[in-house]
Amino acid sequence: MVTAAKKIRVVLIGCSGYAGLEVMRLLARHGQAELVGVFGSADKGPVADLHPSLAGLVPFSQYAFDIAKVAALNPDLAILCAPHKVAMTYVPQLRAKGIRCIDCSADYRLADRALYEKWYCPHTDPAGLAEAVYGLPEYFADKIRTAGLVANPGCYPTSATLPLAPILQAGLIHPKSIICNSASGISGAGRSPALKFHFPERNENFEAYGVGNHRHTPEIEANLKALSGLDVDVLFQPHLAPMDRGILSTIYAQPTRDVTSAELTDVLRKAYAGKPFVRVRNPENGEPLPATKYVTYTNFCDIAAIAAKGRVILIAALDNMVKGAAGQIVQNMNLMFGFDETTGLY
Amino acid sequence: MVTAAKKIRVVLIGCSGYAGLEVMRLLARHGQAELVGVFGSADKGPVADLHPSLAGLVPFSQYAFDIAKVAALNPDLAILCAPHKVAMTYVPQLRAKGIRCIDCSADYRLADRALYEKWYCPHTDPAGLAEAVYGLPEYFADKIRTAGLVANPGCYPTSATLPLAPILQAGLIHPKSIICNSASGISGAGRSPALKFHFPERNENFEAYGVGNHRHTPEIEANLKALSGLDVDVLFQPHLAPMDRGILSTIYAQPTRDVTSAELTDVLRKAYAGKPFVRVRNPENGEPLPATKYVTYTNFCDIAAIAAKGRVILIAALDNMVKGAAGQIVQNMNLMFGFDETTGLY
Amino acid sequence: MVTAAKKIRVVLIGCSGYAGLEVMRLLARHGQAELVGVFGSADKGPVADLHPSLAGLVPFSQYAFDIAKVAALNPDLAILCAPHKVAMTYVPQLRAKGIRCIDCSADYRLADRALYEKWYCPHTDPAGLAEAVYGLPEYFADKIRTAGLVANPGCYPTSATLPLAPILQAGLIHPKSIICNSASGISGAGRSPALKFHFPERNENFEAYGVGNHRHTPEIEANLKALSGLDVDVLFQPHLAPMDRGILSTIYAQPTRDVTSAELTDVLRKAYAGKPFVRVRNPENGEPLPATKYVTYTNFCDIAAIAAKGRVILIAALDNMVKGAAGQIVQNMNLMFGFDETTGLY
Amino acid sequence: MVTAAKKIRVVLIGCSGYAGLEVMRLLARHGQAELVGVFGSADKGPVADLHPSLAGLVPFSQYAFDIAKVAALNPDLAILCAPHKVAMTYVPQLRAKGIRCIDCSADYRLADRALYEKWYCPHTDPAGLAEAVYGLPEYFADKIRTAGLVANPGCYPTSATLPLAPILQAGLIHPKSIICNSASGISGAGRSPALKFHFPERNENFEAYGVGNHRHTPEIEANLKALSGLDVDVLFQPHLAPMDRGILSTIYAQPTRDVTSAELTDVLRKAYAGKPFVRVRNPENGEPLPATKYVTYTNFCDIAAIAAKGRVILIAALDNMVKGAAGQIVQNMNLMFGFDETTGLY
Repeated sequence: MVTAAKKIRVVLIGCSGYAGLEVMRLLARHGQAELVGVFGSADKGPVADLHPSLAGLVPFSQYAFDIAKVAALNPDLAILCAPHKVAMTYVPQLRAKGIRCIDCSADYRLADRALYEKWYCPHTDPAGLAEAVYGLPEYFADKIRTAGLVANPGCYPTSATLPLAPILQAGLIHPKSIICNSASGISGAGRSPALKFHFPERNENFEAYGVGNHRHTPEIEANLKALSGLDVDVLFQPHLAPMDRGILSTIYAQPTRDVTSAELTDVLRKAYAGKPFVRVRNPENGEPLPATKYVTYTNFCDIAAIAAKGRVILIAALDNMVKGAAGQIVQNMNLMFGFDETTGLY
Repeated sequence: MVTAAKKIRVVLIGCSGYAGLEVMRLLARHGQAELVGVFGSADKGPVADLHPSLAGLVPFSQYAFDIAKVAALNPDLAILCAPHKVAMTYVPQLRAKGIRCIDCSADYRLADRALYEKWYCPHTDPAGLAEAVYGLPEYFADKIRTAGLVANPGCYPTSATLPLAPILQAGLIHPKSIICNSASGISGAGRSPALKFHFPERNENFEAYGVGNHRHTPEIEANLKALSGLDVDVLFQPHLAPMDRGILSTIYAQPTRDVTSAELTDVLRKAYAGKPFVRVRNPENGEPLPATKYVTYTNFCDIAAIAAKGRVILIAALDNMVKGAAGQIVQNMNLMFGFDETTGLY
Repeated sequence: MVTAAKKIRVVLIGCSGYAGLEVMRLLARHGQAELVGVFGSADKGPVADLHPSLAGLVPFSQYAFDIAKVAALNPDLAILCAPHKVAMTYVPQLRAKGIRCIDCSADYRLADRALYEKWYCPHTDPAGLAEAVYGLPEYFADKIRTAGLVANPGCYPTSATLPLAPILQAGLIHPKSIICNSASGISGAGRSPALKFHFPERNENFEAYGVGNHRHTPEIEANLKALSGLDVDVLFQPHLAPMDRGILSTIYAQPTRDVTSAELTDVLRKAYAGKPFVRVRNPENGEPLPATKYVTYTNFCDIAAIAAKGRVILIAALDNMVKGAAGQIVQNMNLMFGFDETTGLY
Repeated sequence: MVTAAKKIRVVLIGCSGYAGLEVMRLLARHGQAELVGVFGSADKGPVADLHPSLAGLVPFSQYAFDIAKVAALNPDLAILCAPHKVAMTYVPQLRAKGIRCIDCSADYRLADRALYEKWYCPHTDPAGLAEAVYGLPEYFADKIRTAGLVANPGCYPTSATLPLAPILQAGLIHPKSIICNSASGISGAGRSPALKFHFPERNENFEAYGVGNHRHTPEIEANLKALSGLDVDVLFQPHLAPMDRGILSTIYAQPTRDVTSAELTDVLRKAYAGKPFVRVRNPENGEPLPATKYVTYTNFCDIAAIAAKGRVILIAALDNMVKGAAGQIVQNMNLMFGFDETTGLY
């Protein structure tokens, strides 16, 4: 129904992990975008050998990244699922060829170079950093539409930013009182085997990690500062839950005044009216609280707000592989190329 | 990109279980079919309350089945996910109105009425039984295209029939030597709570059930008799595995002569050349054996054949909710209405 | 090696749930206690039919509770795993016969009758409430040794009280700043089937529940008030994690002054020196953070304390079925009857 | 209650895997055996760092195996949980010092050296092989009691041998018709991280492996030949199920004559009368079929027999870490040192 001529041409760079897998899965059913090549750190043979679920869907082999070979494919878009530090070595080469990019690593998420360098490593592409648009479509759709380089948000930061931003903007919570307690499925830890992620170690296990120092903290704080103009401070505490996918963030904050659940819900409803992938749930109306199962394999982020015991509690659920990674990539791609925002995402 | 006028109109009858949920999930992204109403045993309120994952995707409430109300929606197709025995009370009413039907229950799967009645209950719609086409697209696509009533195959029978049929047709195994050992995720047991399916009873548990008497036995045998012309006898032994989705069938049979894995694989490859949803894996070429994870949330059935220790071993994996239920329904719908067979299924 | 004459005689009242199952499992290997009978709400036939894992270990049938039949067994101890409200109908009858009791329900946990009645229902045994000793051995061992009636603590309250009590006693956190974010395995929800606990609904799912109103809140607050003398206020937020067993509580509080992880750890170490079932972990020394897997099927509660981002974070892990229920029952029994505190619990 | 003087002294050799962990867990509560040292391939520091669940229970560090150091501890028993090929380098040194051994590797399980060398590698301790007693207590208790070296059976072979041996001995099935279809929890694959055992690869996954060539095949066949005197041939097909522990073997065979479930059950009942760890289940009496959950964390092997569709079906369930490894080690130890066979195992 869509002629091949109309489809945009997409290359994927970095395909061996779960985000790359999900990008390929989503592109296979998108209809208006066509995967035309796969590159990575080295020649790795057929993608379908790395990801048997893609047999019959992705006919490509992964070749070592080579800008000439990439450019020869004449792509409209490069989606990067390479690790941070590596991604920023590819992006300038791609941008120099005029290829628009969506980068899924942390390399372009923090506009403040010093902040990036404090949490990660020296940044080697300050020009890219200056150009990059933060790819949270609910807030930056206009800039995304015309962006050359989109920094796809982190999974945890998406789950924290969507519920918190409107409440902070409405001045309903103290910006320095925020605790974000999150639980994630194990795909969030990547695909590299390690004892910590060995099945019998993780199954039937629930565990905190990164206490006080998880790298998504500065991204969450930077987002909320940018969106609210307030000096936000977040204690972010992630956990690993024995499941593949899904993030649930339970967020606690001190209200600035007496506030009701209804009022909080109303603020969220208004903020996300017309946003197709944020579903505001109202437990006072008998709607279920957000749960990871309700968003698995979808691009939805479900959120709810409750006032209880003198505090504000916000709950958000999303699929870390979809709204937290590949789905948001596709959502950004849809905006960048003028497709309907939901194309290929239901 | 597809005009609303072109879309077929679909009603779903029976929406509270997992198959109904999956049908709605798949229709939401199909593009050429539109869900126009949902009916069931009783008025049950918004579908999105029964299935919170569908919030924002399915705006309907479930109403008690009433043929006049159904017909008033002017549907091109009714998809039935009602229980057996109930389904055959709805189908004749729908057919009398000229509405084409795909039935996901067991009611129309066994062409032999006596066989149905031996394993289930008295059959109240013999006319429907006579009209029904067995909806295994890899074998009956031509009949499905023009069918008024399609009986969607059972999940286990699909996983047994696809690998066995070509090998039996080639005369390579003794038709009375077949043992089909299957393991299924728990969604296959339906959505009605019971102690047996209570999370702490099933988690970390692996168990056989229905020893010697599972109701899918006659369907498997009837399929294989019909396709091979042989007097097939199958010992079918299902198990419950602690996971949501997926069936793996490991099938053992006595070869009729010395046979190699390569020969068996070749037979399967030829049988399924051009069939988009059957992937023949060749472990001798280093391809992975079928595993449920490789087909989860897809309409693929992966199969492989190995000759070992004087026996033939066939392995098949599918997602019981997709190729074993809702995906196959959509595949049948695609054939019935002239869409590409894969529409909405990647 | 232990003569039968020395063993105490134990009856179990309420055996169909998971706590009862665990009590029977632990008694089977205790060596100094002998299960002599099982009672409950009704005659239910062999216990091993209700719990097939106990076949060969528990030869009794469950009979409807009848104080004369119970007393005829001449028990030294009755362990009650009946639901709250029911438990307090049995306890006075048992106490009237001079039988010592450990009650696993909520009926005797809250010394303040009004508080109990606010959260549960009218209390029908105020005399029992006055007599009851709260069975947290790390704090009340002396009283437990001579108690006639022990109220076994709740699972969540145990996981919150053990890490918080010493820190509050040391005056290191503001008593009204406490947030207790907990995740529990599904066995904590009991053994009654319901859609919410149906395997495919809970598997691969992580979800908050009881927002702002979980019944363990008053028990946590009462414990901490009693142990610290402070006016403690706790926001308790439980979650369901897709696993059988285990609770992880991640607790956040505002320090009263600058405090280091080392200082917090030192307070915990001193508080639990000589307590065999509390393991204080020091992540600054490279010890792992508490995780549910490290305590599964044990009576340990692992705890750790970290100062980060201007807050105090306490983490506690225990097995809700052992230290959170049956193991703590046995620990209390050991104290009540002069056995070594660890008998039968390693 | 048991004086320290009476306890036997045990060293563990090879502690970093799951079998070693389970041995230490079981010894901690045994009462008549005391772990006095831990050795392995290298100095590895505190055992409790390798296995945080053992903190407070095992005070030892692992030292590199050194026979002088081992002998200096004056052990009554060495339990070896080292890999095959490595184990047979330690055993002769231990035996030369007169230390009795239980070896959990495959090195001494196959009495036929040529068979071992065909499936594994050259055997370097033929004297040990000649001395070794196969440690299946239900059949070889007398030899085990006086053995210097016990070869602890494999997990799958235990699950296959216990149900099959009596039925073969009774001549009720054709010895060359046996198919053993097994599913195992992931702990059976050991504790070395690999992509195949990475949590997101195994969770929600069910998969066959080792088709036609799993190394437990010769052990199963050798056991059954030895016990029945028949020329047995077994097609053994293992699978990985998404759970920690447990093996369920579903075994199919051709009966030699018409046989009923009752008759088969009776044969099993007689064979295992008085054997404390084999529970014969009779589904015809309403008893549940064996399931892994009913034996988790126990030393039981539950078995059942059903005649159906002209075949014999045997089902066996055990915990691969207990009856399939560490529990059977302790059962053997109990026999070797004159303790009650069940000591420390309930």
